[in-house]
Amino acid sequence: MNIVVSAAEMQTMAEQARLQGRTIGLIPTMGYLHEGHLSLVEMAKRSCDVIITSIFVNPTQFAPNEDFARYPRDLQRDTELCRSAGSTVLFTPEQNEMYPDGYSTFVSVDGISSLLEGKFRPTHFRGVTTIVAKLFLLTKPHRAFFGQKDAQQCVVVKKIVKDLRFDIEIIVAPIVREKDGLAMSSRNVYLSPQERSEATILHASLRRAEQLAGSGERSAANIVRAMKSMIQQKQNAVIDYVEIVDADTLSALDRIEKGIPALAVLAVRFGATRLIDNALITVR
Amino acid sequence: MNIVVSAAEMQTMAEQARLQGRTIGLIPTMGYLHEGHLSLVEMAKRSCDVIITSIFVNPTQFAPNEDFARYPRDLQRDTELCRSAGSTVLFTPEQNEMYPDGYSTFVSVDGISSLLEGKFRPTHFRGVTTIVAKLFLLTKPHRAFFGQKDAQQCVVVKKIVKDLRFDIEIIVAPIVREKDGLAMSSRNVYLSPQERSEATILHASLRRAEQLAGSGERSAANIVRAMKSMIQQKQNAVIDYVEIVDADTLSALDRIEKGIPALAVLAVRFGATRLIDNALITVR
Repeated sequence: MNIVVSAAEMQTMAEQARLQGRTIGLIPTMGYLHEGHLSLVEMAKRSCDVIITSIFVNPTQFAPNEDFARYPRDLQRDTELCRSAGSTVLFTPEQNEMYPDGYSTFVSVDGISSLLEGKFRPTHFRGVTTIVAKLFLLTKPHRAFFGQKDAQQCVVVKKIVKDLRFDIEIIVAPIVREKDGLAMSSRNVYLSPQERSEATILHASLRRAEQLAGSGERSAANIVRAMKSMIQQKQNAVIDYVEIVDADTLSALDRIEKGIPALAVLAVRFGATRLIDNALITVR
Repeated sequence: MNIVVSAAEMQTMAEQARLQGRTIGLIPTMGYLHEGHLSLVEMAKRSCDVIITSIFVNPTQFAPNEDFARYPRDLQRDTELCRSAGSTVLFTPEQNEMYPDGYSTFVSVDGISSLLEGKFRPTHFRGVTTIVAKLFLLTKPHRAFFGQKDAQQCVVVKKIVKDLRFDIEIIVAPIVREKDGLAMSSRNVYLSPQERSEATILHASLRRAEQLAGSGERSAANIVRAMKSMIQQKQNAVIDYVEIVDADTLSALDRIEKGIPALAVLAVRFGATRLIDNALITVR
């Protein structure tokens, strides 16, 4: 596995790989890797010759009051995980190379960036789309792999690819969960034992949504009410949002209907830790 | 010369050319070509195998009160000019393919986009940087050629290339002028005979700035005052701005000094026609 720190070196290596006809897959991450990330590497191996995992804790997607400084980092462990998972390149650029003094260019998506997460983290997606565009330009992938856990991020990234015409296929992999259902997240490490135990309610509430829809409930408000009442039973849970939205556009749905893929999405805080999760709701 | 309308076809063609090891040069234009544009094609021929001239009157760089609808268009004439100049590809995408319904992604540069032209055309550069980024992704050039007439556009495009790390060399070609000094511009066709005659004062005022600096004047305010008083003698001239700025950062300069490349820049309206021009001011 090549470990590349220099952005210029990364770009040269990517261009050479393309000229050799090799297929490049990118897995952009903020590190502190878990099985969710590694499932993306596994998936990339099936269709790509060059598997680039990038690790960059991107400051522009954190608001000043958020957890940028304390976001968990363990490059040594990540390096071993990447290597054993089969990544062929680990790209770990420095902050001052990605955002040098005077940096001032941003990629942004109107509309969908302001919904859901965007209501609570108004500058978040501008940071995401900017760094993703930049990683695309530096690593020149044919395919890029994202996890469904960050459902809105997937929609926003697909939108910049479609709108700006990045020549890249975006592949979204299913959420990987702990045995008790908690979606894998680098931020789970923040949780106290009590919070960790309570946090399983998120997945339970999503399963309840699936059950309700499966048994004929069509009202989004009714499903949301049932989810919220479950989550609110947990002592430390503070709900940012629980919504049923169109899976493609993220616009709120009043009713779940055949042929419209619906997504139950939520963000809930347990103490200082903010968790997100989601599930596709299909009606047959 | 290949004439390509489909964006997907353009991108496939560009990718194939790159895989064949051919060097791609892009000349992005809004059409109604003049010798300034053709000098860019000439320049591209010296270092590129594939010369893509794009013609697209980009709506997002025009404000609602500006001249988008009446911007001059003559695709047939442009096609012949491109062909005879040696362009190998003419890319003329449709508006609804570049900006389909629901389009919502923008590339923007803070700071320099709000100076000079940006003060009078606040959304202009967001439109420019968005379409340029998109044309870069569709045509995959190794080099892209821009005219110095749009000095601020050149600075802003270089900035997105540097910040987002587009793997593209930006080449800026000198201003091409009519015999009487007026900078070539597709908008010159708007001028009445009287306005056309008066408009030569713009170049004359820039030459006066060069002379003053050459004879030892260091005060930007004094040079600007001399330029403005020349321009104001013309009956139809209404000055938007005349400034001396740092040629790299576009920040205003108080004094012209050795080693700091200065740019005299101006925007002046003659009736409904708004013209821009500029000159590098060097001190030995």
